[in-house]
Amino acid sequence: MKYGARNKIEATVKSVKKGEVMALAKFSVDKPHEMASVLTVESAEELGLKEGDTVMLVVKAIHVLPVKDA
Amino acid sequence: MKYGARNKIEATVKSVKKGEVMALAKFSVDKPHEMASVLTVESAEELGLKEGDTVMLVVKAIHVLPVKDA
Amino acid sequence: MKYGARNKIEATVKSVKKGEVMALAKFSVDKPHEMASVLTVESAEELGLKEGDTVMLVVKAIHVLPVKDA
Amino acid sequence: MKYGARNKIEATVKSVKKGEVMALAKFSVDKPHEMASVLTVESAEELGLKEGDTVMLVVKAIHVLPVKDA
Amino acid sequence: MKYGARNKIEATVKSVKKGEVMALAKFSVDKPHEMASVLTVESAEELGLKEGDTVMLVVKAIHVLPVKDA
Amino acid sequence: MKYGARNKIEATVKSVKKGEVMALAKFSVDKPHEMASVLTVESAEELGLKEGDTVMLVVKAIHVLPVKDA
Repeated sequence: MKYGARNKIEATVKSVKKGEVMALAKFSVDKPHEMASVLTVESAEELGLKEGDTVMLVVKAIHVLPVKDA
Repeated sequence: MKYGARNKIEATVKSVKKGEVMALAKFSVDKPHEMASVLTVESAEELGLKEGDTVMLVVKAIHVLPVKDA
Repeated sequence: MKYGARNKIEATVKSVKKGEVMALAKFSVDKPHEMASVLTVESAEELGLKEGDTVMLVVKAIHVLPVKDA
Repeated sequence: MKYGARNKIEATVKSVKKGEVMALAKFSVDKPHEMASVLTVESAEELGLKEGDTVMLVVKAIHVLPVKDA
Repeated sequence: MKYGARNKIEATVKSVKKGEVMALAKFSVDKPHEMASVLTVESAEELGLKEGDTVMLVVKAIHVLPVKDA
Repeated sequence: MKYGARNKIEATVKSVKKGEVMALAKFSVDKPHEMASVLTVESAEELGLKEGDTVMLVVKAIHVLPVKDA
């Protein structure tokens, strides 16, 4: 399968906590990998992003979609 | 600073491509790290997520927020 | 009202399940309709999207906003 | 493959428009299907969602992830 | 109309910049208003959110849906 | 810190309600501020957005990220 998304990260399930409607799953990611961000040019310039900079990539857990072989 | 998000990943900028309104930044992530996903209990059960499973975490680049020391 | 979103789909409520904080609503969509996706040009090219292709559109339920006549 | 998302809609590509960084793809959806929304209980109660109600489901195109057989 | 969302903020358009596919609109918000955030209990506890705390609410522009009277 | 996001709004915590997995936090925003939205050019033109227009900005609570001084 091919996905219309830039971030596809291999991970191992560590835990799953279930509430009534929503669940929280945790994963470990052990291999180096790439990530990508789309942001406005204005935001990129305000951050002054340039090659070699160290940044923190913040992602709310709700935006992470787990996919598993059937 | 503390962030109301489960995923906070240290990364290094590799490239930034700017269009007229939107930009695409790429990063390398070199250290092992954790990730988290919030999904419906229904989805978690359909996936049958359990400790030790290998999954792919798919995240659209638009949901990745870069944060940098001022 | 006019909405700054490409996807506006008429639907009928089938069920609502309430937890403590979050609820999950299910709908049936009976009429043919259009959908739209914004993705990076890179992702579109990796998918090789072209007219007539069959695809699956995956959307996390959290991104679906129900709107109802008052 | 199994996806940690409630909405998985079969669709046919109608057009793809590419900018410098972002692309907009349009699809037709011809078969009846289900959809799901996660919202706060407060929002569900404010809407007064109940079985049989007609609603409009609004989804920004950026939240739609196309997936295609490789 | 009623919306299945907690944040509904009255605003005035200040500018619209159009690229090929995406546009960036800016708004001024002049009246005091409420906002709401849904996050994991873990994140809320890590932040130690309590009444009276001053926080910054960060929202990517892509997640803001403008709605206008027809 | 600098954030790759256009919306950074100062707010005061009013309440926090915790479920099993997810929490809902409410805030008051007392000062005039700016907001920004990214949407497709098609959506911007369908809305006919122009300087001085009054709009409502709808944001699902899940997309609001609280950040707090450590």
